[in-house]
Amino acid sequence: MNDNLTAERATFVTHLECSLTGERYDADTLHNLSRAGRPLLVRYDLGGVAAALSRDALDARGTDLWRWRELLPVRHTNNVVSLGEVETPLIPIPKSGGANVWVKDEGRLPTGSFKARGLVMAVAMAKELGVTRIAMPTNGNAGAALAAYATRVGIETIVFCPDDTPEVNVREIAAQGGRVWRVNGLIDDCGAIVAKGAAEGRWFDFSTLKEPYRIEGKKTMGLELAAQLGWRLPRAIFYPTGGGTGLIGMWKAFDELEALGWIGSERPRMYAVQAAGCAPIVRAFEAGEEHAERWEDAHTVAAGIRVPRAVGDFLILRAVRESGGKALAVGDPAILAAVDDAARRDGLLMCPEGGATLAAYRQALRDGEVDEDEEVVLFNCATGLKYPLPAADQRLDRHGAIDFDRL
Amino acid sequence: MNDNLTAERATFVTHLECSLTGERYDADTLHNLSRAGRPLLVRYDLGGVAAALSRDALDARGTDLWRWRELLPVRHTNNVVSLGEVETPLIPIPKSGGANVWVKDEGRLPTGSFKARGLVMAVAMAKELGVTRIAMPTNGNAGAALAAYATRVGIETIVFCPDDTPEVNVREIAAQGGRVWRVNGLIDDCGAIVAKGAAEGRWFDFSTLKEPYRIEGKKTMGLELAAQLGWRLPRAIFYPTGGGTGLIGMWKAFDELEALGWIGSERPRMYAVQAAGCAPIVRAFEAGEEHAERWEDAHTVAAGIRVPRAVGDFLILRAVRESGGKALAVGDPAILAAVDDAARRDGLLMCPEGGATLAAYRQALRDGEVDEDEEVVLFNCATGLKYPLPAADQRLDRHGAIDFDRL
Repeated sequence: MNDNLTAERATFVTHLECSLTGERYDADTLHNLSRAGRPLLVRYDLGGVAAALSRDALDARGTDLWRWRELLPVRHTNNVVSLGEVETPLIPIPKSGGANVWVKDEGRLPTGSFKARGLVMAVAMAKELGVTRIAMPTNGNAGAALAAYATRVGIETIVFCPDDTPEVNVREIAAQGGRVWRVNGLIDDCGAIVAKGAAEGRWFDFSTLKEPYRIEGKKTMGLELAAQLGWRLPRAIFYPTGGGTGLIGMWKAFDELEALGWIGSERPRMYAVQAAGCAPIVRAFEAGEEHAERWEDAHTVAAGIRVPRAVGDFLILRAVRESGGKALAVGDPAILAAVDDAARRDGLLMCPEGGATLAAYRQALRDGEVDEDEEVVLFNCATGLKYPLPAADQRLDRHGAIDFDRL
Repeated sequence: MNDNLTAERATFVTHLECSLTGERYDADTLHNLSRAGRPLLVRYDLGGVAAALSRDALDARGTDLWRWRELLPVRHTNNVVSLGEVETPLIPIPKSGGANVWVKDEGRLPTGSFKARGLVMAVAMAKELGVTRIAMPTNGNAGAALAAYATRVGIETIVFCPDDTPEVNVREIAAQGGRVWRVNGLIDDCGAIVAKGAAEGRWFDFSTLKEPYRIEGKKTMGLELAAQLGWRLPRAIFYPTGGGTGLIGMWKAFDELEALGWIGSERPRMYAVQAAGCAPIVRAFEAGEEHAERWEDAHTVAAGIRVPRAVGDFLILRAVRESGGKALAVGDPAILAAVDDAARRDGLLMCPEGGATLAAYRQALRDGEVDEDEEVVLFNCATGLKYPLPAADQRLDRHGAIDFDRL
């Protein structure tokens, strides 16, 4: 049905590289972090990609995530896994945002969130490299995406989440064949359990950026955005930042597209959006630090960005600074007001993390950081249906006299 | 960003026609049912469409719903409304279904259900024809789609739903700016309230098939399916049937595509799937009736197909019979088992109504009604995330000694 899933296509991975030291690692073998304890980045023979694939050929393919195969790490087509990774739409929000504001609605992906992009790739690579058991800490959506894809390829999964993770996420993970445990702590407490089990050889550790392939999946957000906009980029991107894989991934994507000659050297200003109750990247950005210390007593309604410590902190900060963007914090009331406003005025129901990007955009507009004439893309990272909405229960009696004037 | 939303394109509606008597009605004016009390169907100058648009030109467009503009009723591009109506993916379910079974996952549409297809069209036409206030009965998803689109174009909406409608639907409607009332009855009780208010001139009645344009939006399921399969159709379609707009719409779409010369005369066998606890169409089908009587004491976990009486009953029955298909009923246990199985084995979380189509397919396979070599498409009409899932709360103490062997 879809050539992208079945056509044999050339692949171009040359090696992996430590994101801190540049040390080189072999491709096509299992890795977690580098010897320096930092994320590994996948490197490609981009000259080879340019020779094998033209922008026109790419434009002629179906628009799903696997169209980008030459820029992805999976070698063998029979390891491609899919639950229908559609190109996510760009939706204008003229009333709640402005005339030049688009929301990239990642809630349309399998399992309802952008986590599907990273996990479809990481699971395909786990299959390719013979992994049979995976564990992961999650705030909810990543675990759901992992469970769905791992189940599909027959890999066993165990997921650990903070004990206040939304019920819908926990049930979704279990329904899709993952084993799920609630832990009385935050995501890094869950990560410590995963790390301990991994050290004992009980499973492969799939934590954010601790394996090299989720970022390759996430970078398709950047590839896709360029293709959707006719091979140019917006002036600014507002991205909800927990572990930051997507921001790092998009930044990498833009460099790869430029190396291919498909876009120029202009880049969007990247705004890393965090919640005021958990803003380690913002604190480090403002202090001019290269790394971010753990944020204590993290709390926010936007659970997806409640990440006290990010292993890719320096990569996020580097991308934000190189782009001329900023790290911005917004409070929960502004987040909830943004979610409410986008739904009530533009008919678009966002998740709280998506709402955070709208709140940050408004703040940046007020502060003169962005201009209302600038084309801006906000990332709504998950469907708003996974999150609690205000109650609304007015009742009518079908047998009673109905006062139509008060309806 | 997307030409389909902004390009001025020729339109070809000639008139509307009573689906029972064939009586002709003017296009471009407001209509509910025909004088015979039956749905109106939109007719096009298909020769004109064929002259204006080739299959190749269509293939070159973006794949969203508005690519079909020449086969849709909206005259003026500035009345086009959109929240990103992506082409929904076809997802194989080899373990829970079979090697030739695809699920068309309509949960990827705005507001998470196929109701978006009908309502985006009906709301665009309401805008075009100057409607300012709409009311509708709903089992949940239609109301959510109406609220989102109507809010977007500034039309006021009032929605009535059965009092046991899932909380998430009610809240979603309200969040998206619709006013929503729970009624102690079923969807036809809600419909009676809407009809009464409409008769008093309080609002325009948007009930299923009571205005002519939802079916035009729903028919894009059939158009899209043909395009996705390379201009051919599957051997059988299993469709969850409440009001049946989608089944009627697809049947209409296939005729229009054949008139254009884009597909041949072969048709899929259409299986109208209902729940054993509310199966008026199945009962009428088996009795050889042309119309279906109201089903009393309707009950099923698949609330979307809990529709005791369908105004388009004879159109559903006619399409099913002409196609050589059947109307099939499945019990709630089989529905829930199918949902569970697809999620646990293929990683695809369906809604109960989608699960009903898988249950019906399995039943048809057992009965020799379909062959496992036949290519079959099941419609998952909404995201499974809107529905209750079984609880799954195992807990771990991060401070305690963790017995990894039992994880």
